[in-house]
Amino acid sequence: MSGDVDTPVITIDLDAVDRNIARMQQYCDDHGIGLRAHVKTHKMSRLVQLQAEAGAIGIAAQKLGEAEALATDGLDVLVSFPLIGAVKSERLAALAATCPVTVAVDSETGVRDLSRALHAAGAEAKVLIDCDTGLGRTGLQTPESVVDLAAVVDRLPGLRFVGLFTHPAPPDQSWLPQARAAVENHGLDVTTISVGGTARAFHTHQLPNVTELRVGTYIFGDRACVANESTRVEDCALRILATVVSRPTKTRATLDAGSKTLTSDRARGCDPNSFGLLIEYPEARIAGLYEEHAVVEFQAHASTPDLGEVVTIVPNHACGVVNLHDQADVYRAGVNVGTWPIDARGRTR
Amino acid sequence: MSGDVDTPVITIDLDAVDRNIARMQQYCDDHGIGLRAHVKTHKMSRLVQLQAEAGAIGIAAQKLGEAEALATDGLDVLVSFPLIGAVKSERLAALAATCPVTVAVDSETGVRDLSRALHAAGAEAKVLIDCDTGLGRTGLQTPESVVDLAAVVDRLPGLRFVGLFTHPAPPDQSWLPQARAAVENHGLDVTTISVGGTARAFHTHQLPNVTELRVGTYIFGDRACVANESTRVEDCALRILATVVSRPTKTRATLDAGSKTLTSDRARGCDPNSFGLLIEYPEARIAGLYEEHAVVEFQAHASTPDLGEVVTIVPNHACGVVNLHDQADVYRAGVNVGTWPIDARGRTR
Repeated sequence: MSGDVDTPVITIDLDAVDRNIARMQQYCDDHGIGLRAHVKTHKMSRLVQLQAEAGAIGIAAQKLGEAEALATDGLDVLVSFPLIGAVKSERLAALAATCPVTVAVDSETGVRDLSRALHAAGAEAKVLIDCDTGLGRTGLQTPESVVDLAAVVDRLPGLRFVGLFTHPAPPDQSWLPQARAAVENHGLDVTTISVGGTARAFHTHQLPNVTELRVGTYIFGDRACVANESTRVEDCALRILATVVSRPTKTRATLDAGSKTLTSDRARGCDPNSFGLLIEYPEARIAGLYEEHAVVEFQAHASTPDLGEVVTIVPNHACGVVNLHDQADVYRAGVNVGTWPIDARGRTR
Repeated sequence: MSGDVDTPVITIDLDAVDRNIARMQQYCDDHGIGLRAHVKTHKMSRLVQLQAEAGAIGIAAQKLGEAEALATDGLDVLVSFPLIGAVKSERLAALAATCPVTVAVDSETGVRDLSRALHAAGAEAKVLIDCDTGLGRTGLQTPESVVDLAAVVDRLPGLRFVGLFTHPAPPDQSWLPQARAAVENHGLDVTTISVGGTARAFHTHQLPNVTELRVGTYIFGDRACVANESTRVEDCALRILATVVSRPTKTRATLDAGSKTLTSDRARGCDPNSFGLLIEYPEARIAGLYEEHAVVEFQAHASTPDLGEVVTIVPNHACGVVNLHDQADVYRAGVNVGTWPIDARGRTR
């Protein structure tokens, strides 16, 4: 019979993970920037541990459920997503009773909800004000408005204002310094300026006064990271093994990995109609994606895979892929050393 | 506090599910076509049961793992995806020992693998030959080649040739009749012609000699189904409740549901940069999608939601959304009647 691997399966190369963790930690150490490991990418407690051992100052979670699942003794947990309402605030307060917690906020409503719940629980959270420095997603729109919200935070019990937050590393480099000056003029200390994103991570030292870098994707890399030159293909640690299940024509092969394995995410800087990099056939294009099929197109006369052949895909976007799978096969020096659970998969709340 | 629903959450309107099941079953009954319920859409044993009670002749599963998880006593299970290799074939044989099984095949390699495993297990599978009538995904390329593979199937133990398979309902309407005639000229009976897809489902009776229709998305509907006019918005049974967690500007609201809740799937026939239909604000556009955020744009002077408001999204593609979640909140007459597990979520193997 032609295939003995039960595909599709996601694999993690721990040697590449080690290299990626060491490189980013070294960069941050060299520049006196704290590395906060964003767990949205891997959602795995085993990898939080590696990042902490290497020197991460804390973790960032994009959802409260991720934070609850991956909080580790002693490590500060930043919930880098606006929490609104009683349910979320009470959960945050319960978390804050068990470990140091930081929250990013951009509304007085959110701040008051959090204060009420934290105060009732006898707990405290550090607070960063979310600043929209160009992305257009969340965050306050002007440096001046930061002062008003910081002042509200400063007056409320259960909260401690510590600084500013943005994503990604700001295109407008005057925004955060202006906000910082305005807040300090108001008499509040800005001890933390937190920026995020792997794409521009190695340029963070060029930004004034940044104290911490939130990075997630760097641990695995992906096709978008290769395109933005933050990761080399050989350091892409998360890969999908898939089998050629159909060879309809000489220039087409169909794989058993579709959007339910790879996501439909595009990779910025790459052909928008291409859904991953095929390691063994880098000239081929994963041109069509159905729920469980990928259709690969080859040039005429190119070398092509046989029916039943197992191929390796570097996905467009590692974070989305991990969130589709309950576990990953883990390799060290090319040898499968176990299957690790993706503890926080699907924790969207 | 402003919000008391722990969002994002996926919800199923059972009244709409009942209407959708009844309508499609009635259509198939009226035209003497067997309805084979494609479980890739819902991945829920509770919904298989409703489809079976309404008169489905069997289920289709896009992966073997789905089939294993959702096989129901007595109901024929079609694995509508090419199985290649020893591991998959032995799993299929084990399944075939417990329930009636049909497979779709498009290669002699696959057929021989299956025969070996089925024969060794003392089991049998019915076989449909996968025909590429225009989609360009899997399947044989010419009606003539169908005869050769059908003849191989006919000679091998553990397999019983029953007919032809394509997806979607074929654009080239001469393909299947030609293949059928060629196979029958060879002395084999074609008792089954199976086509698939919700988009053109209600036109199936216009195709010659189709005996069964594989449909999945019809049970929920989604934004793509509204665009292709197979489902009305009011019959879209799968919806996501999300909370407005940020109101950065007068024309922008940010929701707590991103690509890890909604997928990045586009909806054919809709704006490609729009990631769902907002029921309460149908003029608004879900214009940006990050992993956990959706950025909604409103026209100037339009009515907009408050911070903390819970809104309802009809997703672009129901099947992908279901596969992201472990459970769904189920409603009957607007009342939450329970939380049902998505039994086969993530069964990509």
